[in-house]
Amino acid sequence: MTALNRRIVSGMRPTGPLHLGHYFGVLKNWVDLTKDFECFFFVADWHAMTTEYANPQRIKGFVPELVKDWVAAGLDPARCTMFQQSKVPTHAELNMIFSMITPLGWLERCPTYKEQKQQLMEKDLNTYGFLGYPVLMAVDILLYRPGSVPVGQDQLPHLELTREIARRFNHLYGDFFPEPQAQLTEQAKLPGLDGRKMSKSYGNSIYLRESMDEIRPKVMKMLTDENRKRKSDPGDPDICNLFPYHEVMTDKEKQAEIREGCTKATWGCVDCKKLLLESMESFLGPIQTRRAELDKDPDAIWEILRKGDAHAMEESTRTMDEIRGILNFT
Amino acid sequence: MTALNRRIVSGMRPTGPLHLGHYFGVLKNWVDLTKDFECFFFVADWHAMTTEYANPQRIKGFVPELVKDWVAAGLDPARCTMFQQSKVPTHAELNMIFSMITPLGWLERCPTYKEQKQQLMEKDLNTYGFLGYPVLMAVDILLYRPGSVPVGQDQLPHLELTREIARRFNHLYGDFFPEPQAQLTEQAKLPGLDGRKMSKSYGNSIYLRESMDEIRPKVMKMLTDENRKRKSDPGDPDICNLFPYHEVMTDKEKQAEIREGCTKATWGCVDCKKLLLESMESFLGPIQTRRAELDKDPDAIWEILRKGDAHAMEESTRTMDEIRGILNFT
Ligand code: SF4
Ligand code: SF4
Repeated sequence: MTALNRRIVSGMRPTGPLHLGHYFGVLKNWVDLTKDFECFFFVADWHAMTTEYANPQRIKGFVPELVKDWVAAGLDPARCTMFQQSKVPTHAELNMIFSMITPLGWLERCPTYKEQKQQLMEKDLNTYGFLGYPVLMAVDILLYRPGSVPVGQDQLPHLELTREIARRFNHLYGDFFPEPQAQLTEQAKLPGLDGRKMSKSYGNSIYLRESMDEIRPKVMKMLTDENRKRKSDPGDPDICNLFPYHEVMTDKEKQAEIREGCTKATWGCVDCKKLLLESMESFLGPIQTRRAELDKDPDAIWEILRKGDAHAMEESTRTMDEIRGILNFT
Repeated sequence: MTALNRRIVSGMRPTGPLHLGHYFGVLKNWVDLTKDFECFFFVADWHAMTTEYANPQRIKGFVPELVKDWVAAGLDPARCTMFQQSKVPTHAELNMIFSMITPLGWLERCPTYKEQKQQLMEKDLNTYGFLGYPVLMAVDILLYRPGSVPVGQDQLPHLELTREIARRFNHLYGDFFPEPQAQLTEQAKLPGLDGRKMSKSYGNSIYLRESMDEIRPKVMKMLTDENRKRKSDPGDPDICNLFPYHEVMTDKEKQAEIREGCTKATWGCVDCKKLLLESMESFLGPIQTRRAELDKDPDAIWEILRKGDAHAMEESTRTMDEIRGILNFT
């Protein structure tokens, strides 16, 4: 079976609203990809269950909100397939089969496994499903036989496991799955407001859905170049926590002016923050207008998903039917 | 949710033809159970995949043969539901959910896990799916919410794990699953022809489908009381490997005669074997007549299964719908 080279698959876990870090790290890239690729984007609600199993009831509320964030941010439902993982039962079925052929050692060795387990200690993730997370990821991807998968550097081990499972299947049953290639995306890593990684749990994020009234005080309190105590001290945009925001949101000319004013101490951090608020308003304005539209018609988001589910089911069933044939489980 | 107290669920792996050990150990009991219970019997083809993943293509051939053995042995399709596990996708879906809530330690500690892994060393069973075998067993049972499950002593640890998973689900999400009770069946343990456990891999079995011409030489070579060298030596039916066969297949009066003749050295082992062949012919005759009928119409078996699949799907969907409601995965 040849890879569908113009196809990509990617997913996000529905665990909360998206912030600017998600947008510039992943979502912007997704929007760009829809121009050149046949894209399948999924809401990974079964994956969310691996860590949220104690409160699965919360997950559903995040599903339409996530898709609203996607669409509001420019992902056009007419140009890609958006679906909900748990609504496409072929994922559960292939997961059963991949489970049988995946050596335990591959999962135990997976670097993100130990890491995440440690990070989320309070959640008791010593479960069978959490260990099998990468198996389900392989399912999510391989069911659609994409030529490549957009990944950040940190997800490479997971993709490698997907490729290993594809090879193992091909080794056992004959050549079938194309090994998806890594499509390494340059991710603008936007720091959090306090300089740490932008993350819901640090309370240092700006969300796509936040109003300017909520954002303003957050920006005014943002960490900048810590060495610059007053306006008369020259600053250094290259070590400043705020400047990366200008780099993704403010036009290039203005960026040059800031750089000059900052290093020459003619431009203060308060001026800089006010300008950033303007940039943010221009950037978030269209997103929030679209979101307000979407909020008026809650059914519309579910319709996008149900249509996407049907298409994902159709495409994945094509793969699953062939697999049943290969295994003689017809 | 209250248990369906008149319902039982049980399954067999399709890995080869059934022998007399299966019949007297399990199948006879199944036939009896259909008189008093609403029975679901399934062909556990996904379970077969856990150990046969290197040659899954062989499994399908065993599926109709297994059901033929069932029906030929007296299991009436009109009085029970016979279905094929892999054709009822709710099993894969609930397996996903149970995976998330099952602690790894429960599976690693499972006594049959280590044991079977050692027994089947040559098969490389260090797979994720093999470790998760008891999770899938819990799914197979709990999807149908039976009041009890017929088990042999050796399967008690597995049933206990099913009950633990039910309790864990109830603890996390509120009371839902009834804990199925063990219905300990007195299993006539028929030894193999050579005195070891009757097993395909020892080549010491008599199969339900074998003709008397195949059976005759096997019986004539059977191991009997090893201390009895010649007819003039008295024998002891209680340590004889053959006598248990009479106990399950020959009428009580005759059994008393054998016992007396054997201990008084008036009845030889060859006589005893000839009589056993007569008993076997009476026992297997009706089974083989029914099987010959079934062989004439191969579609009939698949129709029994397809009808059973539909009924199992309907019943299990009832459970699955409620679970989706509880988890808010609607
Ligand atoms: S002026 Fe702007 S770039 Fe310079 S230190 Fe202040 S916030 Fe950072
Ligand atoms: S006569 Fe029958 S019961 Fe006695 S030792 Fe021989 S085979 Fe066994």
